[in-house]
Amino acid sequence: MERPGETFTVNSPDEVRLPAVHLDNSTMENLNKQKETVFSLVQVKGTWKRKAGQNVKQGMKGRVSPAKIYESSSSSGTTWTVVTPITFTYTVTQTKNLLDPSNDTLLLGHISDTQQLEAVRSNTKPLKRFIVMDEVVYNIYGSQVTDYLEARNVLYRILPLPTTEENKSMEMALKILEDVHQFGIDRRTEPIIAIGGGVCLDIVGLAASLYRRRTPYIRVPTTLLSYIDASVGAKTGVNFANCKNKLGTYIAPVAAFLDRSFIQSIPRRHIANGLAEMLKMALMKHRGLFELLEVHGQFLLDSKFQSASGLENDRIDPASVSTRVAIETMLEELAPNLWEDDLDRLVDFGHLISPQLEMKVLPALLHGEAVNIDMAYMVYVSCEIGLLTEEEKFRIICCMMRLELPVWHQDCTFSLVQKSLCDRLQHSGGLVRMPLPTGLGRAEIFNDTDEGSLFRAYEKWCDELSTGSLQ
Amino acid sequence: MERPGETFTVNSPDEVRLPAVHLDNSTMENLNKQKETVFSLVQVKGTWKRKAGQNVKQGMKGRVSPAKIYESSSSSGTTWTVVTPITFTYTVTQTKNLLDPSNDTLLLGHISDTQQLEAVRSNTKPLKRFIVMDEVVYNIYGSQVTDYLEARNVLYRILPLPTTEENKSMEMALKILEDVHQFGIDRRTEPIIAIGGGVCLDIVGLAASLYRRRTPYIRVPTTLLSYIDASVGAKTGVNFANCKNKLGTYIAPVAAFLDRSFIQSIPRRHIANGLAEMLKMALMKHRGLFELLEVHGQFLLDSKFQSASGLENDRIDPASVSTRVAIETMLEELAPNLWEDDLDRLVDFGHLISPQLEMKVLPALLHGEAVNIDMAYMVYVSCEIGLLTEEEKFRIICCMMRLELPVWHQDCTFSLVQKSLCDRLQHSGGLVRMPLPTGLGRAEIFNDTDEGSLFRAYEKWCDELSTGSLQ
Repeated sequence: MERPGETFTVNSPDEVRLPAVHLDNSTMENLNKQKETVFSLVQVKGTWKRKAGQNVKQGMKGRVSPAKIYESSSSSGTTWTVVTPITFTYTVTQTKNLLDPSNDTLLLGHISDTQQLEAVRSNTKPLKRFIVMDEVVYNIYGSQVTDYLEARNVLYRILPLPTTEENKSMEMALKILEDVHQFGIDRRTEPIIAIGGGVCLDIVGLAASLYRRRTPYIRVPTTLLSYIDASVGAKTGVNFANCKNKLGTYIAPVAAFLDRSFIQSIPRRHIANGLAEMLKMALMKHRGLFELLEVHGQFLLDSKFQSASGLENDRIDPASVSTRVAIETMLEELAPNLWEDDLDRLVDFGHLISPQLEMKVLPALLHGEAVNIDMAYMVYVSCEIGLLTEEEKFRIICCMMRLELPVWHQDCTFSLVQKSLCDRLQHSGGLVRMPLPTGLGRAEIFNDTDEGSLFRAYEKWCDELSTGSLQ
Repeated sequence: MERPGETFTVNSPDEVRLPAVHLDNSTMENLNKQKETVFSLVQVKGTWKRKAGQNVKQGMKGRVSPAKIYESSSSSGTTWTVVTPITFTYTVTQTKNLLDPSNDTLLLGHISDTQQLEAVRSNTKPLKRFIVMDEVVYNIYGSQVTDYLEARNVLYRILPLPTTEENKSMEMALKILEDVHQFGIDRRTEPIIAIGGGVCLDIVGLAASLYRRRTPYIRVPTTLLSYIDASVGAKTGVNFANCKNKLGTYIAPVAAFLDRSFIQSIPRRHIANGLAEMLKMALMKHRGLFELLEVHGQFLLDSKFQSASGLENDRIDPASVSTRVAIETMLEELAPNLWEDDLDRLVDFGHLISPQLEMKVLPALLHGEAVNIDMAYMVYVSCEIGLLTEEEKFRIICCMMRLELPVWHQDCTFSLVQKSLCDRLQHSGGLVRMPLPTGLGRAEIFNDTDEGSLFRAYEKWCDELSTGSLQ
């Protein structure tokens, strides 16, 4: 047995030698007062080594990591602070004829490395894919998906699920995970594919991001809403304790494949539902998109975002232009804030009151409908505090109505507004961070809207819209 | 209703104007062949705008994001690739007297900003904390934690749970989440605190990383194993479908507070359990630590990592030195690879066969014991293929035995070895990526160990160690 005070030496040929001498108190105190040391990390022959210094040069010595470790000591011991940048990459791709067997986008479109792509294409081993489909989508496209996979000789399992807002739960995510586990996939090379609306994409995203701490997944949106919203960002989630998306992660899909032809099979009300999120981006950031929706909104509803033959992706086709601008403006706001570290988010417009409203009346309102009711009220707030003119307010509300979106709801009481903003305060670092339009296609974040203005706006909103008088 | 072919203009004062002309086919083709455009992102007055170009300078114009968007077009539409670096920061802090009411580390030690710290300290509003404790730990330290929180006037809820390996499930994570939700916390400023061993820290970490897509949490390890292992990294997880840590995330705690005094209350067998992970780092990276364990291992077991009075944090105290070197070497390997994108990981040593062995015999072996059995076999593999001398092998196995760790197990059959390595192949991109010692405190990753060597090593391992003949 060792005597506690005995001196010993820690020898390591590769490491800074630890002092084997007894240190007196004043030396210890100086050590304790010592400033922070920064270490870079260099990999030599598979082993990472700390090297003191902020800027260790890449060179013959080995690979240098962007990570840093800061070390400081006090009388209680050492503190290490690890600072690691991790780069996330994902792709959003518009495509056509996604389910045509001659198109390999669904299976290989997520591979950006051309060498890797060639290697996979020339390999005769069958690919393996696990696919989750919303069951309504499965009823329409199931046989087409099956034919596609058979034609391409894929080992597959399709799991159709009733991915409704009411079923958006951890239980359903676990059901997916059980089936994924039983089927067996390679975490690195066999992405899980989700085909459906936003709820389906969100649940599968959560399941995939939990499996082996992150398994790649692919989003194939089949509704307009998920085409321009869920597919563009990194958020996954399920409802919990009657709260919308209370559990989730920020893990983007490896790829989202957008094929507008799916949208032709969704009901008109669901097209309007998607137009609400498009209108959100228009009001916050893009006057041109707003004016497009004012003029062509009805046409987009009627044509279900299908382009006239020969016009697809043309610079003058409303369906092409509006979806492209919606995605570009959304990516503009999401890319710099993928993990939502910045709490000031224009994309939160329409999402301050709507989550509680949507859950309260479930399933009466679709997501975009609840969002639109929230936006309509906020337009009244903007007008009340002088950010929008009456004429601008009128144009926006008229546009909403022409998009066949509800602009008022009896269950959106003022106490629900107050409770929602109070919750917002609690979860946004003590500021309400309310995005409000300051013109058509312009917006800012406000923290100082007073209760009086909110109430007057509420009264006016009810006066003008509860009876549909503006219509 | 709009005629599909009609021309219109999308006007936006702030945006590049979209061409309103019909494009002929050859122009379209050229557009389609156009090269990728890169966009930087600049924030002006709360709105993010894309600016073409890789290097948009920070300046009067607004905040520039490190994120980039790459855009390219083809005949099928547009592809956007989002590349976003996200910086993760976390702190590992050694402290003393963590539960002394005069020490505010547990409540405020995660705040690194001195201004923010002063603001919180001078605020008279009570702090609010949700705390999960392993129930065995609660029986020992519960009243001390309660006294601490009462003395500091904290609004708190303590949830004691039986956080054993058998209970490490999503169900337990959801139980925590229900209670957290009912209690109500501010996602930004009220971190969830976990006090316990690795299982407790892993489950709470998963729950916190899911709640509102990421709620900060704090790790307080009470075992040697979690002190040097679970607290140092970013991994969270629960078991699923009888597989170890099959579901989880890579979300580091905001802070880990390490107080060695907790270790005095754990059984001797659990000290040995932790020493296995320490030995792992020694064998992979640090000969000095190996030699320390050879000489002082028994003393560390006897003294339960408690320092003799006056020796704490001294450069000659085995408990201080060994824990510090274990953490430093672990951080060296984890910081550059926090999300395990690099599959070649020295820290996987001892973790190729042990997960299946541990789950197979649950609860017979502790985690570190299973790891040690795996390491012992791998030492035989290293010796068989000429990476280690017989003498080095002998020293390592002797050291393990003196640390009172099992070096062989009857349920670790050769077919379990084969199955584990086969699973490894499947989940490591087709390579086995086997870390093997190439000397004392040195290691490399190997992909070409042949079945014959593995089998001969297995036979020799059984011959020499199944009867304990080396003892």
